[in-house]
Amino acid sequence: MTPTRTVSPIRIVGTGLLGTSVALGLRRLGVDVLLADASPSALRLAADYGAGRIATAQTAADADPADLPRIVVVCVPPDVTGRVVARELEAWPGAVVTDVASVKSLPLDELRALGADLSRYVGSHPMGGRERGGPLSGRADLFQGRPWVIAQHEATTVHGLQEVEGLALDLGATPIPMSAEQHDAAVALVSHAPQLVSTLLAMRLVDDEDDASRLAGQGIRDVTRIAASDPALWVQILAANGPRVAAILRAFERDLDRVATALERIDEPGSRRVIADLMAAGNAGVARLPGKHNNRRDFASVTIMLDDRPGQLARLFADAGEAGINIEDLRMEHSQGRELGLIELLVLPEVRQRLIEELREREWRVAA
Amino acid sequence: MTPTRTVSPIRIVGTGLLGTSVALGLRRLGVDVLLADASPSALRLAADYGAGRIATAQTAADADPADLPRIVVVCVPPDVTGRVVARELEAWPGAVVTDVASVKSLPLDELRALGADLSRYVGSHPMGGRERGGPLSGRADLFQGRPWVIAQHEATTVHGLQEVEGLALDLGATPIPMSAEQHDAAVALVSHAPQLVSTLLAMRLVDDEDDASRLAGQGIRDVTRIAASDPALWVQILAANGPRVAAILRAFERDLDRVATALERIDEPGSRRVIADLMAAGNAGVARLPGKHNNRRDFASVTIMLDDRPGQLARLFADAGEAGINIEDLRMEHSQGRELGLIELLVLPEVRQRLIEELREREWRVAA
Repeated sequence: MTPTRTVSPIRIVGTGLLGTSVALGLRRLGVDVLLADASPSALRLAADYGAGRIATAQTAADADPADLPRIVVVCVPPDVTGRVVARELEAWPGAVVTDVASVKSLPLDELRALGADLSRYVGSHPMGGRERGGPLSGRADLFQGRPWVIAQHEATTVHGLQEVEGLALDLGATPIPMSAEQHDAAVALVSHAPQLVSTLLAMRLVDDEDDASRLAGQGIRDVTRIAASDPALWVQILAANGPRVAAILRAFERDLDRVATALERIDEPGSRRVIADLMAAGNAGVARLPGKHNNRRDFASVTIMLDDRPGQLARLFADAGEAGINIEDLRMEHSQGRELGLIELLVLPEVRQRLIEELREREWRVAA
Repeated sequence: MTPTRTVSPIRIVGTGLLGTSVALGLRRLGVDVLLADASPSALRLAADYGAGRIATAQTAADADPADLPRIVVVCVPPDVTGRVVARELEAWPGAVVTDVASVKSLPLDELRALGADLSRYVGSHPMGGRERGGPLSGRADLFQGRPWVIAQHEATTVHGLQEVEGLALDLGATPIPMSAEQHDAAVALVSHAPQLVSTLLAMRLVDDEDDASRLAGQGIRDVTRIAASDPALWVQILAANGPRVAAILRAFERDLDRVATALERIDEPGSRRVIADLMAAGNAGVARLPGKHNNRRDFASVTIMLDDRPGQLARLFADAGEAGINIEDLRMEHSQGRELGLIELLVLPEVRQRLIEELREREWRVAA
């Protein structure tokens, strides 16, 4: 075990999903966590949930000396982050203050406008959200293995940076230093624009009068999955990063117009070429995403049919395990209107044939 | 067992993924399958693979009376489907001819233009593609539980319809009658437009100079997964359904323009409302997709951390199985740059707490 870097006590303002998860992760390491929240009931819930003790003082002047935090972590919605960080900087003159908002330029600009002491502020963004919110969705492992952006600015001190990096490392995350501007451009591309594209496509299904969705397969399900995200939260996130997201959507729109025009004039020379080039560029783009699949090695796939009975998966994995074969990834597909599923297992190519044989021997319905 | 509806022999023209899968599924029922393909090597491969016997006659005039098919299934690329169906209708005057192309108006129009005997033609489209092609990807179970569109037209006979429905039922699919026009509009919405939207988003990653994709999470991965699809095949599919796909993209474009404008002028009155309404419409759209999740009941989620060691999944599912708990769905997440993964299990809400306790007792790292 590496020694814990975060020094007790730490103060966490806002006990939603992220605040509670930070608190739970630190509690597990034995760090003393003080919790604050504008909602007394949310606060009590988080404390009952084991996230820490309820802070009694809201400024250093009122606090017991043992309760002076070294770090304050502000975990409130993006709209109010700047204001709350400014208040905390003022309330705790000895503390480094960070926040976890999913945009980084807006709070920094607000702090500048408020004349806050920026030397003690280091913004950050742990990339570990979930679709559900609230303290009861919080979990100590939420940030394990995730990128955690640390947004430096011109007044960032080495001390401030180290405190926030220590926090990220303690929670198992990988610190990634970036400027606020770089961060906001990056999340516009990999998070905010994809959210809107998914939503815009899902909208097309609202007026599906012919019930075309009966024919929906896994493709559209994947593309529209995040369209189920919480509107209220996303309005705040998108509003705080508007122009950067808009710029990506405009570039998308230009390509979209080109392909729609080609489809409208499909028999004219060059139209098919436009579509072929587009498809090839999409192949190249998706290959840039890091991940177990894309940048290390290609796995081989084995598909098995399952009945929807208890114990099927247990038996399947026990059988695979007996053969000493590691399952690298898996994916479950459900068939429309049937109690029957397909599971696709991904394994190293060199063990694929052996897995197929071992499973067939045990009477699994394996489709290679 | 229901008796097999398809009468031997059946003739399958084209031994790619779909042709081979139809053949394998029928062989399993004991149907006598005659295979034809323009490529002698593909044909031999499919026959070696157990898909049927190689057809020696290409017309009724040359065939042994025992080798006269009741149904011919044309499984060739969309571009040549009309032509091949016309040839087969002429070659086998006693047979009903169907095809499996993923567009249905184009082949029908081509057959009309060629003056083919439409009373013996019933187009169809089994919705069971995979990302990989070729006879070796073929599998007998490919259509199990999938929708299989049967495209009626003004000259469709009851006999023709019954033969093709019987084929779909024999292969475990659910026949869905639609006109060619309805079908093409439906797949434009649930398959062709989603493909292009996914591709257009993935393209944005090509010029990712700041390496924003380091911050990519599961959202963008899901939205762009099908952007990895085969360009050559998709050019044919999209070209054959151009105007219908273009109409959906144009509607998408109008919404896109509205949201981009709102983001560009985010501080003007009404801009946030535009985004909130859009997000809500996306929620409503995705809820229309049928599926185990969406229209039956909500499952409860339990997340477990795994080390990347052989046997972990086996042990996990064995432990869940011992508790008699059925896993309804699952999803694996990989962390960036780490040999460590999270697996999310979905179970009936009433067994969730018990699953958590049983797994924790067995020392699994469970995050609720």
